[in-house]
Amino acid sequence: MTTHQLNVALAMGPGVVSRVFPPRRLEALAPELRLVSPDPMEDFTSPRSLALLSEADILITGWGCPVIDDAVLDAAPNLRHILHAGGTVKHHVTVACWERGIQISTAADANAIPVAEYTVAMILLANKRVLQLARQLHTEKTEIEPDHVFPDMGNFGKRVGIIGASRIGKHVIRLLKAYDVEIVVSDPFLDHAAAAVLGVDPVSLEELVASCDVVSLHAPSLPSTYNMIHERLVASLKPGATFINTARGELVDQDALLRRIEQGDLYAILDVTTPWVLPADSGFYTHPNVLLTPHLAGSLGMELERMAVSTIDEAVRISRGEPLLHRLHAADLAFTA
Amino acid sequence: MTTHQLNVALAMGPGVVSRVFPPRRLEALAPELRLVSPDPMEDFTSPRSLALLSEADILITGWGCPVIDDAVLDAAPNLRHILHAGGTVKHHVTVACWERGIQISTAADANAIPVAEYTVAMILLANKRVLQLARQLHTEKTEIEPDHVFPDMGNFGKRVGIIGASRIGKHVIRLLKAYDVEIVVSDPFLDHAAAAVLGVDPVSLEELVASCDVVSLHAPSLPSTYNMIHERLVASLKPGATFINTARGELVDQDALLRRIEQGDLYAILDVTTPWVLPADSGFYTHPNVLLTPHLAGSLGMELERMAVSTIDEAVRISRGEPLLHRLHAADLAFTA
Repeated sequence: MTTHQLNVALAMGPGVVSRVFPPRRLEALAPELRLVSPDPMEDFTSPRSLALLSEADILITGWGCPVIDDAVLDAAPNLRHILHAGGTVKHHVTVACWERGIQISTAADANAIPVAEYTVAMILLANKRVLQLARQLHTEKTEIEPDHVFPDMGNFGKRVGIIGASRIGKHVIRLLKAYDVEIVVSDPFLDHAAAAVLGVDPVSLEELVASCDVVSLHAPSLPSTYNMIHERLVASLKPGATFINTARGELVDQDALLRRIEQGDLYAILDVTTPWVLPADSGFYTHPNVLLTPHLAGSLGMELERMAVSTIDEAVRISRGEPLLHRLHAADLAFTA
Repeated sequence: MTTHQLNVALAMGPGVVSRVFPPRRLEALAPELRLVSPDPMEDFTSPRSLALLSEADILITGWGCPVIDDAVLDAAPNLRHILHAGGTVKHHVTVACWERGIQISTAADANAIPVAEYTVAMILLANKRVLQLARQLHTEKTEIEPDHVFPDMGNFGKRVGIIGASRIGKHVIRLLKAYDVEIVVSDPFLDHAAAAVLGVDPVSLEELVASCDVVSLHAPSLPSTYNMIHERLVASLKPGATFINTARGELVDQDALLRRIEQGDLYAILDVTTPWVLPADSGFYTHPNVLLTPHLAGSLGMELERMAVSTIDEAVRISRGEPLLHRLHAADLAFTA
């Protein structure tokens, strides 16, 4: 039995293990897996870390994991899998890991779920004009006829545009299929076959922005996507449309967006902005057409455990000789955050 | 061909047809169906109405349809189907209709969809504490660490209680299946077999209210449900829970609910209240833990067309000899709004 056990080590920044991994999840590791220590490595150079690395078959990493370079891998001769309980591996997985054929897996799919859920909820409420009508009721404190205020309210038949068929964008699409909305997607790397698998129509970014009742941004933050929603695109958003950004502020011309909002015919749901924390006099805080949330769409609180579950499930799959479910390839990195 | 055509007549209150039935929907009736007049009857006594009734095989009704009693049915000897493009038929379908074996169908399922969608969106946002954190950001205009404010935020593993396996309650359950929440349901008429079909655990009302992170009310308004969420139940809601009411205010002890909210450890999403329009000094308007919306969860605006589509689809099914999809039986009326 013990000869088949695989040794699992943890590596992440201070405090991360207690936030992400509830103790019962680590205690319930399959018998084929042996946790070499419940305390994660926070460096890869101390004698304790070198001893743990020398034993590790599987390394479970989290936020703040130190960089895994050739020296670390030399100290971990049995290491075959790095399983990351977070979104991006760009901060700690180096080219040395890929070159040595180590299999990498991430919890990026799990990490995408809360963002997609936030987005779907906001799309449903935006098409129904719920937040605007709640605000009006709060202010007027009298009878309101919702469809006299917004004759076009309702989700039925509305057109929703998803910019970016990323993990998050795809999950938004999957969840939205349960609703009577028309979904279109824009992604330069999504061909017609892949769009057909998703069951959506691929359109150009220009067409999407100009034709949709709700436009939601799910592109990665890369040099090539900086300012991709530029002033002309912002100006082309339909009157009455809602723009949702849960991705990154720098993908959008922030000044153009605020100017357009201040014209009064655009609504915005913004979980991210540039700068990350807006100055107190920013118009985004106060305009009634904006719902601003403090970078909360991603995995936080109880949702971190979903990443732990996903990561431990990958370790169990390895112990059973099954392929990883969330394997990452080096080539994927060019297109993801 | 013409011998097989079925004559369809419309009956509803002033202005309803233009709100619910887009002209293209009526123009596109199947060739087996003949609309005897695009202008609905608004009474059943005028010579014009009596002429239309004498021809009608199918009557499509809408809000404000006059009462269909024996005299009306005597004037409509060929009438076999009443298809209602709305939620409840209680205002116009009399016992005479049932006694004559006329088949009744409603768009209550279509009407339930927007309410269920509103509810699901609110559940997702409530578990993530989105509206509270947006309010805090709006007030403080500085950096906020969402999970420092609400360490338990997130949908993963949360327990959601659905009171009432009504059309709406069931659709909420179906939609919620796409999310990592535990769903429990309380309904005195839902047995274990029916709960198993829904894939949820049936629990007592007391257990549901006391154990769930979100409690959403979807019971019909009937004498037996008046004040069903009484003072003790309101007091037993979990600290930090969110209570959602899209049903009717009179199902809930309004004073007890407001008192509990004012303790500061309960959140509420209220689309309905008693009275229907609250006095301007009501605490429900101003308490930061309340999102009050103006009776907008139901079918409004664009969503009315979904009821037209559902109703016309029933007429098409009749013309093809297929059974109604949304047939109502007299016995159903005791359990529905």
